[in-house]
Amino acid sequence: MEKQELLECHERIKPYIHNTPVLHSRLIDRLVGAEILFKCENFQRMGAYKMRGATNALLRLPESERARGVVTHSSGNFAQALALAAQSLDIKAHIVMPSTAPVVKKAGVLEYGGEITICEPTLEARNRTAELISKETGATFIHPSNEPDVIVGQGTAALELLEVSPDLQFLFAPIGGGGLIAGTAMASHYFGMDCKVIGGEPFEVDDAYRSFHSGKIETNSSTNTVADGLKTVLGSNTFPIIRQYVTDIIRVTEEEIISAMRLIWERMKIIVEPSSAVALAALIREKDQYSGKRIGIIISGGNVDLSRLPF
Amino acid sequence: MEKQELLECHERIKPYIHNTPVLHSRLIDRLVGAEILFKCENFQRMGAYKMRGATNALLRLPESERARGVVTHSSGNFAQALALAAQSLDIKAHIVMPSTAPVVKKAGVLEYGGEITICEPTLEARNRTAELISKETGATFIHPSNEPDVIVGQGTAALELLEVSPDLQFLFAPIGGGGLIAGTAMASHYFGMDCKVIGGEPFEVDDAYRSFHSGKIETNSSTNTVADGLKTVLGSNTFPIIRQYVTDIIRVTEEEIISAMRLIWERMKIIVEPSSAVALAALIREKDQYSGKRIGIIISGGNVDLSRLPF
Repeated sequence: MEKQELLECHERIKPYIHNTPVLHSRLIDRLVGAEILFKCENFQRMGAYKMRGATNALLRLPESERARGVVTHSSGNFAQALALAAQSLDIKAHIVMPSTAPVVKKAGVLEYGGEITICEPTLEARNRTAELISKETGATFIHPSNEPDVIVGQGTAALELLEVSPDLQFLFAPIGGGGLIAGTAMASHYFGMDCKVIGGEPFEVDDAYRSFHSGKIETNSSTNTVADGLKTVLGSNTFPIIRQYVTDIIRVTEEEIISAMRLIWERMKIIVEPSSAVALAALIREKDQYSGKRIGIIISGGNVDLSRLPF
Repeated sequence: MEKQELLECHERIKPYIHNTPVLHSRLIDRLVGAEILFKCENFQRMGAYKMRGATNALLRLPESERARGVVTHSSGNFAQALALAAQSLDIKAHIVMPSTAPVVKKAGVLEYGGEITICEPTLEARNRTAELISKETGATFIHPSNEPDVIVGQGTAALELLEVSPDLQFLFAPIGGGGLIAGTAMASHYFGMDCKVIGGEPFEVDDAYRSFHSGKIETNSSTNTVADGLKTVLGSNTFPIIRQYVTDIIRVTEEEIISAMRLIWERMKIIVEPSSAVALAALIREKDQYSGKRIGIIISGGNVDLSRLPF
């Protein structure tokens, strides 16, 4: 990915996304012993950074492909993002969702005019179902994290954060499929001043941590995490970027995720989803290493089912 | 209250408070059919507008009285506000709290260095206990809503909102003891352009509604509302201001409060307490009357016990 691509992408998607606020909390600063800026993508349109990548991918499609629609599979946020972005551009969006997806995320897709197909909650079933729809309708498949235009789009959140705080020393982001952290790492590489990128990942789905250390893409045998957005694995495009540009991956327990989530809710009075809390949880777990540093955290989203909170 | 008092108060407390953000939600605008600006006092220091009045009351105390400390009774937010403001100014704060006060609010008072005395959950017991402490220690009693310096302080939230949006046609605020709405009404009178002030109140504690219509201060025989900040009644200073400067009071059901609270959480991704949702609930209940209008809502606070949510 070239520097210019990121800048052009940002210009392209600007009319369709929010430049989300950057918040900080003196109390959390004191607790961690560092200066932390939170880039609040929970305030993004449809409630997550995924709106950026989805919008970029659609705007990059040739007219002929737009007419035939798009298809993706997603446990939640990318599903809503693609549905909303497609609605804005008058494109038909087919969304393959696992039967286990949170009710609030299914409702969001329907509200944004997406057409849902439910499948078994396995990666294999998701892929097969999306492929079938693509064959039947001619819809273009857009991968929620591995599609290059999606990765560039996700990087614009860090780009905006570095525009207002160019001197960040570290940038933390959660890792699921790797689209966010890969985009963040590229933005940090081109626009940071020696800003290192650190990933946060639940122990329960630590495929990225293991991939990072083994040198090949690993999978998870189970996905028992509260961070429902982080159950997917790295892809052929996200993994090489992560290997090259990410400095470290820190794993956290479910208790640490829930505790960080509660800290953000209680102290910052903002609603963030468990996946978002993983990055802060990672920083808190290793806070002695980051004492006195100037740190950015990408708060990835705020779409939670209020009837099923972990506390 | 003179116009000058409000401006001087704002200058006085500025170093100790946040000029909180003003947010809006396109989705809620569409749902109500009006243009709504939310003044987000849930992002105020200690999580509620009460920080304004508490700070002003303390800064207005003569040195001799500051040395003997202060005492108040409060079900929650004013307790924390006075404790934190007193801590900032190195003043001792005695806080009388009913045994039914939310755990999170008691914890807040302790964290801010306040000294808690628990009493029975009646207005009579609160008053008696506070009086006793005042006699024993020489501490100055500061009423959470009826103290004139507190009322002026609370009015600065509306003052800030009208500074950025001088052309609001209506301002909605919840009514408990009446300090917020009285201050809001004065700010609107002096700084609005014919901006009418509307109160929201739960049916379950509709003393202000009944007082407004009967012409004398009424009380509640029970206080079974989720809006724990609105259980108190009007006072000798707040009531006359409300009679003269408030246009209407709209009552809402418990279901309407919880539904408005959930709407704000899900759509705006911010945490507001039930009392804050009462103002939006009132607007939604009577939305046909406010169609197409430009409306401000004071979001009073965000201190909720996450272990005891109403949904």
